[in-house]
Amino acid sequence: MANFNFSNLYLINPCEINDECYSRAMHAQKIIDEAKIFNSFNDCVKNLDYLIATSSIESKSDKKHLRNAVLLENLSEKIYEIDGKVGIVFGREDYGLFNEEIASCDIMLKIPTSEKYPSMNLSHSVAVVLYSLFIYKKKESKKKRTIGKIEKEKLFVFFSDLLDEINYPIHKKENTKIMFKRMMGRAMPSKWEYHTFMGVLSGSLAKLKFKKRN
Amino acid sequence: MANFNFSNLYLINPCEINDECYSRAMHAQKIIDEAKIFNSFNDCVKNLDYLIATSSIESKSDKKHLRNAVLLENLSEKIYEIDGKVGIVFGREDYGLFNEEIASCDIMLKIPTSEKYPSMNLSHSVAVVLYSLFIYKKKESKKKRTIGKIEKEKLFVFFSDLLDEINYPIHKKENTKIMFKRMMGRAMPSKWEYHTFMGVLSGSLAKLKFKKRN
Repeated sequence: MANFNFSNLYLINPCEINDECYSRAMHAQKIIDEAKIFNSFNDCVKNLDYLIATSSIESKSDKKHLRNAVLLENLSEKIYEIDGKVGIVFGREDYGLFNEEIASCDIMLKIPTSEKYPSMNLSHSVAVVLYSLFIYKKKESKKKRTIGKIEKEKLFVFFSDLLDEINYPIHKKENTKIMFKRMMGRAMPSKWEYHTFMGVLSGSLAKLKFKKRN
Repeated sequence: MANFNFSNLYLINPCEINDECYSRAMHAQKIIDEAKIFNSFNDCVKNLDYLIATSSIESKSDKKHLRNAVLLENLSEKIYEIDGKVGIVFGREDYGLFNEEIASCDIMLKIPTSEKYPSMNLSHSVAVVLYSLFIYKKKESKKKRTIGKIEKEKLFVFFSDLLDEINYPIHKKENTKIMFKRMMGRAMPSKWEYHTFMGVLSGSLAKLKFKKRN
């Protein structure tokens, strides 16, 4: 983290922070001292606006939206357009992230790796992701005002309502909601795009509901 | 190395290759088994055609050519043009490479890092360098199955129909259609995402039209 100018470390139920941790951190002990510790994933991420899950296990099929991944190089180019606090979520050394943790993230990131040996050591994954973000930061230019957490949630609620209104098959609903989340995660709508798109969604909903009543 | 499809490991006067080495190598033990061990730097590199030294210590001045470095991203683009055997030379965990070792290499490579904390852990340096070489190697091959022109046009027609159905203000329509196009341009939907999303749009349209008739 210190090698690439990152400083905010959040840990969820970590191992004991002992002498070995400090000695391995070399001259970056400040990061450990200032790390925030949480008891649950939800607590940890509740103040973050955009969450990036990392995993080496990708969907084989485009149908499974949950693990449809964006490649690291492509994300690194776009990440600096995001307005707000971005969290990069790394999983456990052995199991990685659980599906429900991945589902609550805006996007899933995959580090391109060998097909024969895709699974990376946690510490190497972090190094590679932060390196990639670091080199793009140097190229960074324009910032776009993207939507925050609250707007995003409202967008997803409206989309979900739309599925209800059109009697969308229940067994397909969750997957389709995640697909929408992933598409919006990649599209990174600006505030203006958000308001315009919400106008279309709410217009559709209002009309569908009105017709139902009459 | 296995994560990024590299297999030829040369070691110069290494530590003892013991059980800990094997256990840390996880499923990449083959690389250790096949590693070549040398007693001297010169012996090790004599059959290699192009040598790349790695270091975090760069010349402050262009005049000091020894440590004038090429940045990783720039090297990665060009390395595949090299004809022959390329060796990437990493130094000792504590001292890095000596000046005479760097001098005998064709080029010096620097991983871009924080100016405040430039010195990387050896294992992280290797991960980052091999990752960077790996993604450039792959650049031509990996293509995602995104939607084509026809699908895209159909998507825009459906979205436009939806605006009509909800009596969207005429003077705002063009701009909103362009916003949708831009968002989809960034989201770059896959074929499956396209079909799922079209399902939602056409479901909404069918329902809106049905209500109108009745």
